[in-house]
Amino acid sequence: MKKSEQKQVLEKIEALGREILKEIENKENPKLEIPIRTRANIYFDEKEQIIKIGDKKAERYFLNTAHAKKFMQTLLILGYLKKLIEKEGRTLSIRQLFYVLRHTIPGLKEDVFNSQDETDPIIEDIEVMLDVLRENLNLIPTPKGVIAGPLVVYDKKFKQTIDYTKQGAAGGAVPAIVEADALEFKECSAKYVLVVEKFATWNNLNEAKYWDKENCILLTGKGQAARAERRLVARLAHELKLPVYVFTDLDAAGYYIYSVYKYGSMNLAFLSEKSALPTAKFLGFQMKDIKQFDIPRRSWIKQTKWDLKRLKELKGYPWFQKKEWKKELNELEKFKYKIEQDALVAKHIDFMAKEYLPTKIENKDFLP
Amino acid sequence: MKKSEQKQVLEKIEALGREILKEIENKENPKLEIPIRTRANIYFDEKEQIIKIGDKKAERYFLNTAHAKKFMQTLLILGYLKKLIEKEGRTLSIRQLFYVLRHTIPGLKEDVFNSQDETDPIIEDIEVMLDVLRENLNLIPTPKGVIAGPLVVYDKKFKQTIDYTKQGAAGGAVPAIVEADALEFKECSAKYVLVVEKFATWNNLNEAKYWDKENCILLTGKGQAARAERRLVARLAHELKLPVYVFTDLDAAGYYIYSVYKYGSMNLAFLSEKSALPTAKFLGFQMKDIKQFDIPRRSWIKQTKWDLKRLKELKGYPWFQKKEWKKELNELEKFKYKIEQDALVAKHIDFMAKEYLPTKIENKDFLP
Repeated sequence: MKKSEQKQVLEKIEALGREILKEIENKENPKLEIPIRTRANIYFDEKEQIIKIGDKKAERYFLNTAHAKKFMQTLLILGYLKKLIEKEGRTLSIRQLFYVLRHTIPGLKEDVFNSQDETDPIIEDIEVMLDVLRENLNLIPTPKGVIAGPLVVYDKKFKQTIDYTKQGAAGGAVPAIVEADALEFKECSAKYVLVVEKFATWNNLNEAKYWDKENCILLTGKGQAARAERRLVARLAHELKLPVYVFTDLDAAGYYIYSVYKYGSMNLAFLSEKSALPTAKFLGFQMKDIKQFDIPRRSWIKQTKWDLKRLKELKGYPWFQKKEWKKELNELEKFKYKIEQDALVAKHIDFMAKEYLPTKIENKDFLP
Repeated sequence: MKKSEQKQVLEKIEALGREILKEIENKENPKLEIPIRTRANIYFDEKEQIIKIGDKKAERYFLNTAHAKKFMQTLLILGYLKKLIEKEGRTLSIRQLFYVLRHTIPGLKEDVFNSQDETDPIIEDIEVMLDVLRENLNLIPTPKGVIAGPLVVYDKKFKQTIDYTKQGAAGGAVPAIVEADALEFKECSAKYVLVVEKFATWNNLNEAKYWDKENCILLTGKGQAARAERRLVARLAHELKLPVYVFTDLDAAGYYIYSVYKYGSMNLAFLSEKSALPTAKFLGFQMKDIKQFDIPRRSWIKQTKWDLKRLKELKGYPWFQKKEWKKELNELEKFKYKIEQDALVAKHIDFMAKEYLPTKIENKDFLP
């Protein structure tokens, strides 16, 4: 039987603990080696096609007045997380974790943590140092997405089977933790995963039973994807070998949402290897779709200053340098307008479900 | 058989249309009478204990250069909504509605709507003029809440039964539209509804199977409640005669979240009669709970300037003038700290599920 991810995480925490203990017994200065998460150590890996953290590491010593407090904080958190995982199945938010660990050091007037601003970065340090996801440390993000389609999952903690063809107008809520220890894929007859930017688009396609007619999984992260939605899509792609198509607004924000699913993000570069999805394709909305699908002038709205500023930033990102994307970004800049998914119902309430999406997917008309 | 809500809505739209037609045939100046939604016409009804819209109405005339455009816009939206409802079961977001209706008036250079800022207020005008909810006009808000507990619903559009005891760690997503035409309550053995402010609290209680042990419905709106969560709680209370207990942070924002569930809000005063719930009780967190449950100093954090400002505002609201609330608000102001739900896991991971909530509910220890 495959070792559970949580068992692996526990072993990593214990190994680190033993190492520090050995350093103490050898009268060495105990230290932690933590990969640096600042922009200077983040790069776009052209070969793997993901945003990654580089090799630079910071050393955190116990016997160093500048490091001692953070060293203590890191071990406090690690020690508690070990306990949390061992209490099988219990999870906390990172704010709850802050309160659980916050206390005054006995005999001193000093608190171990002054605010969540001190615990959050250490949680990220631990994720990158141990190469584990916080979800496998039993720390939950707040999920926001919904899902529908021919996928049956088994919730291991609740021992319940959930069928995403039977969730009605609401769809199934994406769970906070979608890792293999929590969620097992039982059955799936879908041919692909369609990720849509907006809930209104998801709702329109769900009502049209798009996922039933096209035999796909339909998911929205309600805007910028949170951790749970990214990990769920990545697992569907990797484990069930499903192609992933991303459908967003035609604007800089939409392009960026796609790029986060595909390449990861700079802020969470340490997540990329587990969440990014270099095989994801950009379905649209594309500049050339305007003409091909005859999108009327009344569906266009002016790009704002923010849109144009964001577009300029995108042009500078290494992961937007493919020739197809350079062309797309330049054309969008000249266009001066943007086209939101919401505008596409103006052609016909089923334009997306019956015309646009089936045509694009049949013709494999994607951007890389 | 009871007439469906949508049928009633259609009849109201048609009646309004016939009235305008009659005015035209009689060579009168066609007019709409729209209750005013500004603060000046909003008051707290002491008898009904809800925030309501007063009697003041504005008249919108077709033959008045200051009114003509809005008159036309109102009829355009009404006409389209009638069509939308008749296409059984299809819904749109209010942004999608803007795009559907946006067009240039033939022969003129004038657009019927310049932006969504013009359509949104007219949708509210229509809600209050016809005394209908936009959800019954097939306009969806974006829901965000999750629910668990012994409640089985039937999704009438999708013809699917959803059991909220079988939704695993994720819980059931609250649908965008929870009106009687969309959602039928099939079975419910719950003794009460517990509304909690935060997702992390909901997650903690869901993992502890609180709803199973205590036989209740457990719901969170993830912070300030959106329309769907408010309407769902109101329907559960009115139709299933369930008591509703609201559990929030001990701070001004938490108190306010409670007051919106109970009395409604000023911005959506026209919603109060359908969504407010004067029988709702405030479970906590209360000032006196700090001592009773021995909440340690490390669970307290300083109120921010914003918290204190908000607290002063609350003290001025007519619906916070009960003696119990005056005392509570004064004590919180003097306390200078606040206690978030997140801090309560610091006592013990099951402090809320096994100690705090059962004690409060058994003793009916609520604020009115």
